[in-house]
Amino acid sequence: MKVVEIAGFGGPDRLHPAERRVPVPGPGELLVRVVGAGVNRPDVAQRQGVYPPPPGATDLPGLEVAGHVAAVGPGTSRYAIGDAVTALTNGGGYAEYCVVSERAALPVPGAVDLLTAAAIPETMFTVWHNAFERGRLRAGESLLVHGGASGIGTMAIMMAKCLGACVIVTAGSDEKCGKCLALGADHAINYKADDFVGAVGRITGGRGADVILDMVGGGYLERNLAAIAVDGRIVQISFLEGMKPVVDLGLLMRKRASLTGSMLRSRSDDDKAMIAQAVEAWAWPHVEHGTIRPVIDTVFPLEAASEAHARMESGAHFGKVVLEVA
Amino acid sequence: MKVVEIAGFGGPDRLHPAERRVPVPGPGELLVRVVGAGVNRPDVAQRQGVYPPPPGATDLPGLEVAGHVAAVGPGTSRYAIGDAVTALTNGGGYAEYCVVSERAALPVPGAVDLLTAAAIPETMFTVWHNAFERGRLRAGESLLVHGGASGIGTMAIMMAKCLGACVIVTAGSDEKCGKCLALGADHAINYKADDFVGAVGRITGGRGADVILDMVGGGYLERNLAAIAVDGRIVQISFLEGMKPVVDLGLLMRKRASLTGSMLRSRSDDDKAMIAQAVEAWAWPHVEHGTIRPVIDTVFPLEAASEAHARMESGAHFGKVVLEVA
Repeated sequence: MKVVEIAGFGGPDRLHPAERRVPVPGPGELLVRVVGAGVNRPDVAQRQGVYPPPPGATDLPGLEVAGHVAAVGPGTSRYAIGDAVTALTNGGGYAEYCVVSERAALPVPGAVDLLTAAAIPETMFTVWHNAFERGRLRAGESLLVHGGASGIGTMAIMMAKCLGACVIVTAGSDEKCGKCLALGADHAINYKADDFVGAVGRITGGRGADVILDMVGGGYLERNLAAIAVDGRIVQISFLEGMKPVVDLGLLMRKRASLTGSMLRSRSDDDKAMIAQAVEAWAWPHVEHGTIRPVIDTVFPLEAASEAHARMESGAHFGKVVLEVA
Repeated sequence: MKVVEIAGFGGPDRLHPAERRVPVPGPGELLVRVVGAGVNRPDVAQRQGVYPPPPGATDLPGLEVAGHVAAVGPGTSRYAIGDAVTALTNGGGYAEYCVVSERAALPVPGAVDLLTAAAIPETMFTVWHNAFERGRLRAGESLLVHGGASGIGTMAIMMAKCLGACVIVTAGSDEKCGKCLALGADHAINYKADDFVGAVGRITGGRGADVILDMVGGGYLERNLAAIAVDGRIVQISFLEGMKPVVDLGLLMRKRASLTGSMLRSRSDDDKAMIAQAVEAWAWPHVEHGTIRPVIDTVFPLEAASEAHARMESGAHFGKVVLEVA
């Protein structure tokens, strides 16, 4: 089968088309004939050599796919050959065929095509677990999302609005801010023109944000603690600007804030299955109904994966970058 | 009335006996004729000038008292003059009379005397809120308590054992470790002789502690993150060795750990009332039954408050230091 592999760590040009043998689904697994594969930040980190695949996983990048079931492993029961599914993978999405756990796969809602469906799992599972489960975001509370224009950010806007939260985002240009507002965000802060701590204070009447979803880290931690509400929760899903910032324990205690976070990829199959189940129950009706629909920035053919990475690294994208495989 | 006041910030000798007017209870308040007043770390910090009383509070130190109701303010209903109560205060415990919120007062259980009762509120409210509510400690989980020999530590041992948790403590000598074990701790680590990260790993079979109650801060944060279990909670109640340590966000995310904390004194009357209610419901039966009984290290007369502070600052104490007022 055709794949795109990481031919040594480095820039986007290290992604090379190649041939591999079609994998065989094991117990509880499905083989998916891939139509679309989502591109995510962890793929970029894996290509750079700073985010190795977990033990036992393929070295091929690609953490989410949508396509048709081509073969079923022993012990599966939910899907038949030909069914359209979208799934979180343990890697290997940049390929014509990909093996996924049946429990991490969801049926593609009738209202969305397969390229759009491929852009769902990674961001939806991430927002669900981090903002909703870990951050305990509730209706009527405020959520501050850094990187509102990213795949995660755009998904967080839609999901949090469906929950009934007030959504505040930061983005790097007035144009991106306008797009976030058009997508449903209540407030958008151009972080290059405005200090988000002061802006969040004004927006919330001095209360601060109840939940902050952050992928920046570094100096943002201090500012997130300044912008968080009493009893608020800061949830870290990456640390693009620094892994080891200073934390002011006095401020954390005065605000009774929580700092937590998670990584999706390294979680157990059971954990991912539980998130999939919750996502299907809560979010799938919204996807059917059209109130949640991933924003697709650009679609590249699989062979152009290096251009897809370059697009993501440029920071010019709004929403998801997707590879069209077949 | 006789009081002990802070005559300028500095060492224990800055505590001076003095005379003040007996305060008048306002709406919802009680005037307590103090029999015993607990000594706590925040009193020391207040004396040093690094922990000012919240706005509107008396400048007199003392965050908990037990004694008899001497007068009731308008709108109170639960207690009559002469009733024995123990209460969290907003300050002013180092005095013959102290005004407390009725809702932060609890009836003294028949099984304990008033000096012992005076040693209950601050530590019990702190452990309840931080280890049980904020840290969500559950039966069958493990709790690591730093400073197991302190007032907080000894109370945490007893309360967590009543909950059905496995209790691991650190303490600074084999003698203190032995006393913690005698009090019910399952494991005690002499932190001067052993690295607690390695010890917790051995004790928990590599799992780590589910909840860590920490008042050390500084370099302990990095080690707490190393000692915490996946999905574990680190709850910060002070930072005796440093307020602004570095936090490893990558490790926090890999472990899906939470770092949180709180301060008791600055909380609203409503918050303290809610904690008091929960403490009465859950812990009071254990106090009546004798399974929870504060450990009293030493009792000093009110006039010797400076000796009491010196005792606490020496680190030689095991359990609570209490002032006998009448």
